[in-house]
Amino acid sequence: MKHPTDMKRGPNDPGLENPGRRTMLLGSAGAMAAVSLLGFTPLARGEEPKTLPDYVAWKERNALILHSANTMETQRGAIGQGVITSSDRLFVRNNLPAPSEEIVADRDGWEVNIEGVKNPRALTIGELKTMGVTTVASVLQCSGNGRAFFPHGASGTQWSVGAAGCVMWTGVPLKTVVEALGGPVDGMKYITSTGGESLPDGIDPKTIMVERSVPLHALDTAMLAWEMNDEPLPLTHGGPLRMVVPGFYGVNNVKYVKNVAFTETQTDAKIQASGYRIRDVGKKGAPDQPSMWEMNVKSWVTAPLETARAGRNMIYGVAFGGTKSLDKVEVSTDGGQSWKQAQFLGPALGPYAWRPFVLAADLPAGEHRIVSKATDMVGNSQPEGRTENERGYGHNGWKDHGVTITVS
Amino acid sequence: MKHPTDMKRGPNDPGLENPGRRTMLLGSAGAMAAVSLLGFTPLARGEEPKTLPDYVAWKERNALILHSANTMETQRGAIGQGVITSSDRLFVRNNLPAPSEEIVADRDGWEVNIEGVKNPRALTIGELKTMGVTTVASVLQCSGNGRAFFPHGASGTQWSVGAAGCVMWTGVPLKTVVEALGGPVDGMKYITSTGGESLPDGIDPKTIMVERSVPLHALDTAMLAWEMNDEPLPLTHGGPLRMVVPGFYGVNNVKYVKNVAFTETQTDAKIQASGYRIRDVGKKGAPDQPSMWEMNVKSWVTAPLETARAGRNMIYGVAFGGTKSLDKVEVSTDGGQSWKQAQFLGPALGPYAWRPFVLAADLPAGEHRIVSKATDMVGNSQPEGRTENERGYGHNGWKDHGVTITVS
Repeated sequence: MKHPTDMKRGPNDPGLENPGRRTMLLGSAGAMAAVSLLGFTPLARGEEPKTLPDYVAWKERNALILHSANTMETQRGAIGQGVITSSDRLFVRNNLPAPSEEIVADRDGWEVNIEGVKNPRALTIGELKTMGVTTVASVLQCSGNGRAFFPHGASGTQWSVGAAGCVMWTGVPLKTVVEALGGPVDGMKYITSTGGESLPDGIDPKTIMVERSVPLHALDTAMLAWEMNDEPLPLTHGGPLRMVVPGFYGVNNVKYVKNVAFTETQTDAKIQASGYRIRDVGKKGAPDQPSMWEMNVKSWVTAPLETARAGRNMIYGVAFGGTKSLDKVEVSTDGGQSWKQAQFLGPALGPYAWRPFVLAADLPAGEHRIVSKATDMVGNSQPEGRTENERGYGHNGWKDHGVTITVS
Repeated sequence: MKHPTDMKRGPNDPGLENPGRRTMLLGSAGAMAAVSLLGFTPLARGEEPKTLPDYVAWKERNALILHSANTMETQRGAIGQGVITSSDRLFVRNNLPAPSEEIVADRDGWEVNIEGVKNPRALTIGELKTMGVTTVASVLQCSGNGRAFFPHGASGTQWSVGAAGCVMWTGVPLKTVVEALGGPVDGMKYITSTGGESLPDGIDPKTIMVERSVPLHALDTAMLAWEMNDEPLPLTHGGPLRMVVPGFYGVNNVKYVKNVAFTETQTDAKIQASGYRIRDVGKKGAPDQPSMWEMNVKSWVTAPLETARAGRNMIYGVAFGGTKSLDKVEVSTDGGQSWKQAQFLGPALGPYAWRPFVLAADLPAGEHRIVSKATDMVGNSQPEGRTENERGYGHNGWKDHGVTITVS
């Protein structure tokens, strides 16, 4: 029904309708130079190569839309109805080119510095593995998932729905590590993580480095993960070690993490200071704008996508509450005029995981607009529309995320 | 830590110590002729080919012990610490050679007859898919898992711990299908499922066919599954359609199921009438002996397996309660003299799923015997020893399932 090899991009993928959109990583001229220098060449329609770049060659090609060498989206039809996303179908979004495979040659030898604690020190993964372990299911989603639906042409990768997946992370709770080092220094308000990418010469590191700060309360759930889906964390997804902040947007889950600091203020790296901020269309990014931290409640339909036979059909999708468990998902087959409650499919894996859902619906011949709307345990529901914002972040409006199918 | 490619068979695998044991499928002379006719050639030690047979070529070779072309065990070191077993590491046990791949060419066209209901009829998978859907995590385990530990040389594949995995099944609840057909005919006591294997000429079909009966109460949980781990069910594991009875031993989960009948009595097929029965050593199988239906509570250690460094170590394993959720798992590092309670790792996926567990233990230099003991919610615990029985079924004694490691 949804095997990746059966899937192709359909008319409900907005990317097809907007082949000319800008797909640059960053907005400023300086950053555009960096993009070019780093080899980020956005792909236009029809340019998608048949094979994947080497560092993602193990992925299921047919499950992915290849936006660029560093951005790959899971086809809507390949998302499936599973509680966990298979690693080979999971989206890829790298802010910088991935480091060499050499960094996963000796996984246990990888070091991470822990700073801003009473007894700062470097710890190897080998040491972390003896300190404690937890396994948490969490949705990994790019802040710009759904960007393609913004009519103003938000710059960046034109993600539709597939810059998201739900995976199992295994690693040590950050709290366990920090407590062993005496706890955070008094007065610290953020956890600031730095990625292990190599930075090119000739560019101010602050404009390009991946360094993200999250509020201190994330210490209750953050982890340093060395496994994903019961396999050593692939380089592609940040191996050998990744900061995972369950329920937070992807960018906060810093890959190849080499430094974790408890800090009084947020980092002044561009990716934090002005990047990943909710700001009005046309406005520049600034530190006083909301940062892309906790994810909001969201859902979308995954099947059927284009056509269906008249009669009883099963409508499938996925839904999640960010940092809160879901209460319900409703589905409409008339574009939102009337709603029916869907059933959750499969076991609940905790507040940070997504839940596949299904609704049996009798569909007569004709065109139907199918939309879904999730509500979390404290009553947050998806809005109908978008919160318009310059970079097209955090879109969870149910209207844009629906699909139109032809029933015959 | 446990990537399949790092794994090799270790000294804790009893199969290594018993290379000469019989590995025939069935005990009688007639059945042995059938075995030969069907191409079941048990492999002796050192004979394991480097590649897998075609119908399982998609599996991770290094994760598996190849006992024969129809029996492959997951290496203890490749079981992992995941809540779900990756399909490519899952064990294989076919009672008969797998049918041709042709039967999965048109999955939705596969037909299953439903009999012993008020309105019997054949249904295609395409029809089943519109009737209802559920996703359930359940341990799949061969009745003979642990057979290699029996000292009397029980005939059959010499499974150690790896004829088990925990997978997600997606399909329609059998109850939904049966209710749509008017419900079972009054007085029916069993659900009898027949596999779609081709049977060779010249052998009484009853001696070789895969046809199993389970008690009617299994109707509350049984399902007709078309997906495993969010992919169309592979032929290797019974695709396009498999009867899945959560919490029941593997043999009851009939592959390529073509007939489901509600019956007054159990089938007289050999696999049910005398096969898969708990009987004293040396005794023949008979219908009045306990059948291999519900699984019992069980656990085993998966890491470390051979060696460890002195100091703090994380001891991992998996545990399940058959049809009941677990209360706890205890681990001993002194062969069962003293016990500590382990932590569960990752989310609980329901009563039929297994739960990975972990215990941090300080291990001084020397040899250590590590054992684990699970207890379910109603107080059933693993016994220390074996229930000796002719075919080596249902072994859940904690003593045999431990590992001896050298710490230095």
